[in-house]
Amino acid sequence: MSADEFSVIRDLFAPYATSASARALRDDAAVLEAQGQMVVTTDTIVEGVHFLAGDPIETIAMKALRVNVSDVVAKGALPVQALLNLTWSNARPASEIATFAEAFGRDLKTFGIALIGGDTTSTPGPLTISVTLFGAPVGSRVPARGDAQVGEDVWLIGGEIGSAWLGLQLRTGALGLAHLRKERDEAQAQADSRALAGQMPSYLTLPNEDFDAEAAWLMMAYLAPFVRPECAGVVSKFASASMDVSDGLVADASKLAEASGVALRIEINAVPFSLAAERWAFSGGDVRKLITGGDDYVVLFTAPNELRGAIEVAEGSRALRLARIGVVEAGHGVIVADREGQPVAVSDTGYSHKLGR
Amino acid sequence: MSADEFSVIRDLFAPYATSASARALRDDAAVLEAQGQMVVTTDTIVEGVHFLAGDPIETIAMKALRVNVSDVVAKGALPVQALLNLTWSNARPASEIATFAEAFGRDLKTFGIALIGGDTTSTPGPLTISVTLFGAPVGSRVPARGDAQVGEDVWLIGGEIGSAWLGLQLRTGALGLAHLRKERDEAQAQADSRALAGQMPSYLTLPNEDFDAEAAWLMMAYLAPFVRPECAGVVSKFASASMDVSDGLVADASKLAEASGVALRIEINAVPFSLAAERWAFSGGDVRKLITGGDDYVVLFTAPNELRGAIEVAEGSRALRLARIGVVEAGHGVIVADREGQPVAVSDTGYSHKLGR
Repeated sequence: MSADEFSVIRDLFAPYATSASARALRDDAAVLEAQGQMVVTTDTIVEGVHFLAGDPIETIAMKALRVNVSDVVAKGALPVQALLNLTWSNARPASEIATFAEAFGRDLKTFGIALIGGDTTSTPGPLTISVTLFGAPVGSRVPARGDAQVGEDVWLIGGEIGSAWLGLQLRTGALGLAHLRKERDEAQAQADSRALAGQMPSYLTLPNEDFDAEAAWLMMAYLAPFVRPECAGVVSKFASASMDVSDGLVADASKLAEASGVALRIEINAVPFSLAAERWAFSGGDVRKLITGGDDYVVLFTAPNELRGAIEVAEGSRALRLARIGVVEAGHGVIVADREGQPVAVSDTGYSHKLGR
Repeated sequence: MSADEFSVIRDLFAPYATSASARALRDDAAVLEAQGQMVVTTDTIVEGVHFLAGDPIETIAMKALRVNVSDVVAKGALPVQALLNLTWSNARPASEIATFAEAFGRDLKTFGIALIGGDTTSTPGPLTISVTLFGAPVGSRVPARGDAQVGEDVWLIGGEIGSAWLGLQLRTGALGLAHLRKERDEAQAQADSRALAGQMPSYLTLPNEDFDAEAAWLMMAYLAPFVRPECAGVVSKFASASMDVSDGLVADASKLAEASGVALRIEINAVPFSLAAERWAFSGGDVRKLITGGDDYVVLFTAPNELRGAIEVAEGSRALRLARIGVVEAGHGVIVADREGQPVAVSDTGYSHKLGR
């Protein structure tokens, strides 16, 4: 970009460069004053791959940050500083960058993160955003994927499984509202929705121009995942192995199992779903879609079963939707068991896209 | 990508994850054990913007790393650890990723850098690569862009100005060989070139299928900049203000001048050009193209003039093409002076591309 455009963009992001490390975004590099352990993670999201071209620029900005917050939190750490590589599509108006910066900055504040640097460039292709996030471990140990032991409990914390996948189906019109509601709820739901509709942004309206509070909640789970930094404390204190669930519960559980050289047995009955997801499954939806769909952004961890009582009463764990969903066994892979304890056949490929041609 | 593809890519890059921080690329985050100051920089390069779609994948990999090495070195630091965000184009064969990884890994080794993490994803758009690089300052101070003082000398170190721009012109066919040679050199140059041609990769052959050693050197300056980490010592010891020259000498000098609240006066006669560039300018080429073209990747710094003698005899400075090119003056902007001391009118926009539509 030209020097002028560079200055404009720097000025847009400068209010969020609240750390001395950032050198007010006026230098070629940030200077970190580092002491001890630091968690570092980086994730890229691409228009048409990780989000839809029609998604609002505000929630794209939030998602770019939050998918990284999720990785840091899953390592028992709190996010502190970020770098932003913004590769702006030539097909998008440059004026949208200000909206992106404002939403990204608001989310940085929400999570207490300082922007310390980055790079802005243009592309003839889709909008592409990489965020690199630095986190401070809450405790002295950063749990790895590969530390699960046979006999441990398997836990989820931080939210619901499958809500984001359902939200994506609603957003693309692949799924209608009818499947989410019991008939007797219909009148009340419509009244609630009418009351809220006027206060809501247009992107939370369904493709058929309805607004529905429950659908909006699910769509927001897809658009801007509800990542909960409070999970870091529980993970840091109790987890043997941990990772975030982002590519689908089964796929990510498989990765943890592989890294640890064990098998994970998951009771589908114990997995935390939203009420809407349960209704959808009850009315004929395939529950396997919920546990293999992506974009959940919750934490999967294992812990010795003698810690079970302490984990269940840990501060905030109930509000964080803590759920004990299975056990670590000898073997390899993931076994999903139904209500009767019988294995359910599921693919473990999770959210996938082909790389190259 | 699928879990299988992920494993394949991890295995390609794992040999270069030589630091414990990397957790063998098997975790969601790296864990840095940090002590004291650390320089952090990140740059994205995009196919069709920062490199040509037809550039060899090996040199694209090298360029992605080196543009970041250049930033770290310009801050008086040595590169130590890297993150790689590889956003692979669906239009490119996946098999090329192995070649990319090998070239990237070879360059990591050349510069003594450990890969500690990253992210690989696909895109319907152009190949897009972000590298984040961590550097260890050689001294106790990391010079900023904004620290130049009136009366200081302006220096360049690390290589030639304009060679990469000339290389790009040769590579695109915008410029032919004839302009680079004096007539009396022609016979010897052709003989030299024939002797080398068989040993050279095809991408160093000109569009008209000639091979020429001098042209190959210039094209390599564009394809994979010759960044010299040895410059970090001189910068750390002597520089007041510093930055790398990557968007064109005049544009980057303007940024340093602006950040420092001063003017930079540059004697065009003192700027280090290659012999080929001087011949080109002598035979009618516009020297302003050389000082405004991009992709040089050398270090621009200022230093008090009482250090002049010490800088000139600093270890390695001659081999690093150290050149004193001007002075810091009161005012603002960049004044380029010709052999007679008269100002030359140049644009300071440098390498630029429009952002968004």
